[in-house]
Amino acid sequence: MFEIRTRAADSRARTGTLRLAHGTVETPAFVPLATRGAVKTLEPRDVEALGYEMVLGNTFHLFLSPGPELIDAYGGLGAFMRWPRPIITDSGGFQIFSMGHGGVADEIKGRGRSGAARGSASAILGLTEDGVRFRSYIDGGERFMAPETSMAIQAALHSDIALVLDECTPFHVTRDYTARSTERTHRWLERCLDWHARHGPRDQIVYGIVQGGVEADLRVESTETVARSRCGGIAIGGSLGQDKPQMHQVVDWTTAALERVTPERPRHLLGIGDIDDLLVGVGLGIDTFDCAMPTRLARHGVAIVPDPARRWRVDLAKSRFRGSQEPIMEGCPCPACAAGFTRGYIHYAAHAGETTGPRLLTLHNLSYIQRLMSDLRDAIDRGVYAETVAAFMAGAAPSVR
Amino acid sequence: MFEIRTRAADSRARTGTLRLAHGTVETPAFVPLATRGAVKTLEPRDVEALGYEMVLGNTFHLFLSPGPELIDAYGGLGAFMRWPRPIITDSGGFQIFSMGHGGVADEIKGRGRSGAARGSASAILGLTEDGVRFRSYIDGGERFMAPETSMAIQAALHSDIALVLDECTPFHVTRDYTARSTERTHRWLERCLDWHARHGPRDQIVYGIVQGGVEADLRVESTETVARSRCGGIAIGGSLGQDKPQMHQVVDWTTAALERVTPERPRHLLGIGDIDDLLVGVGLGIDTFDCAMPTRLARHGVAIVPDPARRWRVDLAKSRFRGSQEPIMEGCPCPACAAGFTRGYIHYAAHAGETTGPRLLTLHNLSYIQRLMSDLRDAIDRGVYAETVAAFMAGAAPSVR
Repeated sequence: MFEIRTRAADSRARTGTLRLAHGTVETPAFVPLATRGAVKTLEPRDVEALGYEMVLGNTFHLFLSPGPELIDAYGGLGAFMRWPRPIITDSGGFQIFSMGHGGVADEIKGRGRSGAARGSASAILGLTEDGVRFRSYIDGGERFMAPETSMAIQAALHSDIALVLDECTPFHVTRDYTARSTERTHRWLERCLDWHARHGPRDQIVYGIVQGGVEADLRVESTETVARSRCGGIAIGGSLGQDKPQMHQVVDWTTAALERVTPERPRHLLGIGDIDDLLVGVGLGIDTFDCAMPTRLARHGVAIVPDPARRWRVDLAKSRFRGSQEPIMEGCPCPACAAGFTRGYIHYAAHAGETTGPRLLTLHNLSYIQRLMSDLRDAIDRGVYAETVAAFMAGAAPSVR
Repeated sequence: MFEIRTRAADSRARTGTLRLAHGTVETPAFVPLATRGAVKTLEPRDVEALGYEMVLGNTFHLFLSPGPELIDAYGGLGAFMRWPRPIITDSGGFQIFSMGHGGVADEIKGRGRSGAARGSASAILGLTEDGVRFRSYIDGGERFMAPETSMAIQAALHSDIALVLDECTPFHVTRDYTARSTERTHRWLERCLDWHARHGPRDQIVYGIVQGGVEADLRVESTETVARSRCGGIAIGGSLGQDKPQMHQVVDWTTAALERVTPERPRHLLGIGDIDDLLVGVGLGIDTFDCAMPTRLARHGVAIVPDPARRWRVDLAKSRFRGSQEPIMEGCPCPACAAGFTRGYIHYAAHAGETTGPRLLTLHNLSYIQRLMSDLRDAIDRGVYAETVAAFMAGAAPSVR
């Protein structure tokens, strides 16, 4: 189901095609979040028009509301949310453990505490070999998720790619805790694959998740364990370190091991999607990425622009953009820029609370990343990946097409 | 600038074309609200794709933020909000007086108190012959609006149609108060027209506003006074009564008088747009309508459907729609229904706070009303207006096209 087309000579970068139950995905690809069954502010036709071929749904949130039985009755998440193309669902582990461990989400994403606010009303009530008990942030009721539960939910969601349930360990735990947790995650992997072999949809692919924290040997060991399993693809999860160099290092260890033991299986990097991380990640051999960044930034008035010195971000909610007649981004072909919307209008809409503003920036940000990924695919196929990355790192804009 | 094409034989209904600075508007037409420079949840291209030719901007809100100078620097509201077609701006009178008099908005619209919540932080500080002082709901600061102020703001907004500043009297005041207020509104009308003649954009048309409360003689007198003025069109405003029959009666008095004294000028009915009111209003000779109803209902999960017994409304946020696999409206060609979105998905999105839901319903509701108005125009031109209205009143759906 994964065909690699081109391998770069000077990096682990590669292009390929994922053939999934609901269609194909050209890789390397960015996967926008449809966390609760909608890419926020957009319709599915908007996401398709931008050129995206897959979105990510969230097992944890959809488990709590509206519930897997309801979505199953529609024929799955794609039918429910009217997205006719592939869907990847995460397992819920990240959301459960990021609220329980407190701050792991922030560490991994390099954010402050506020980003984890949604989970703050929930808490882990108990973690055993069986699974994890937690409190619902919606109704305060107790819920239990075992590896089998996560797989059953994802079966009900009829996603094209399901992820196994993992414990997402935070950065601040001991090496010993990480080692024991990673071993349990490996046992959960086998339970997930057992359940899926007996009950899962035939056309659903299961990705295992590599854990191991920031310990090189644990990461390599986890990679080898996951590679030995029956999983159809490999996701990289857990604590990826306290800063970007460490995160890139952890990914490097993992994909180096993957090159050695299972070069043909597709690889997904969980929750990472800053522009520089995409450029580095593709070079390290990642095939797909998901991240809240482009859509979340849009809701806070931040546009992605070709400005590496400012982390590719410009905060249009800032007062200096009041009345600005500049375009969001010069020469950008996205629907917002093509219609002539200015930075000043976006600034105004952000302050007036008009959701048209976040919608316009969501279109812009997702357009930027889709064009960037398309350029990277072209560059790999044409054998000019390194030069292309260097140009982007120096502030080049993605192609206009 | 207004050409009447067809007059119905058995009612005052008529079709025509408004030729305005930024394009033409086929009438009778519904005008969606872009109160603060955006049709909520939509982009201008969405509004155009639905077939709308004009939107309404709000002088009061845009005066307070972002301010007329800022919008003027862009070349006007259309350039600022990227709407390339005609715009009508109301004068601000309704918003100022609905908060000051308390409850007039609710009386006129037939709503409960909550609908006027936005204005509740503001208050009228003083009303004199000069104009009205009030407190800004944004910063608490004092503001003053004279008839000339309103015209200057609307000149800065470069709207195609400007409305004169009027005092919008509530239903509960005395006949004597209404009479004196209406006389002042007539003096303000002359001041607005004087200012516009000297300073207003040449290609902007000014509509006078008929007041007079629910008193037949005052309405007729106001109609005659406004008709004698230099205004290019006539709007009907103020208290239109305590229920729909009284509102229809007030409109009937007014358009009967207009037929007699100025049949050729275009007529706008302010703030009215329920399905039955559109059907009745067109028959009474109204050319354009504006109303928050279709867009506001959408944000509360309410879809417009051909169900006269339930006021053409179905509240999809209600619990009985959880998991419903019914379409929003059978056979509807709007973007939401055409994509197969169900009542259950809209119910879910409303409860999950996903703005994709309100967006889908906004598209549906505005599509419904645009197709209804298009059908009414066809019916008038084909001489079958009465039968068409009877069919709609009996639950017929607008045409699919």
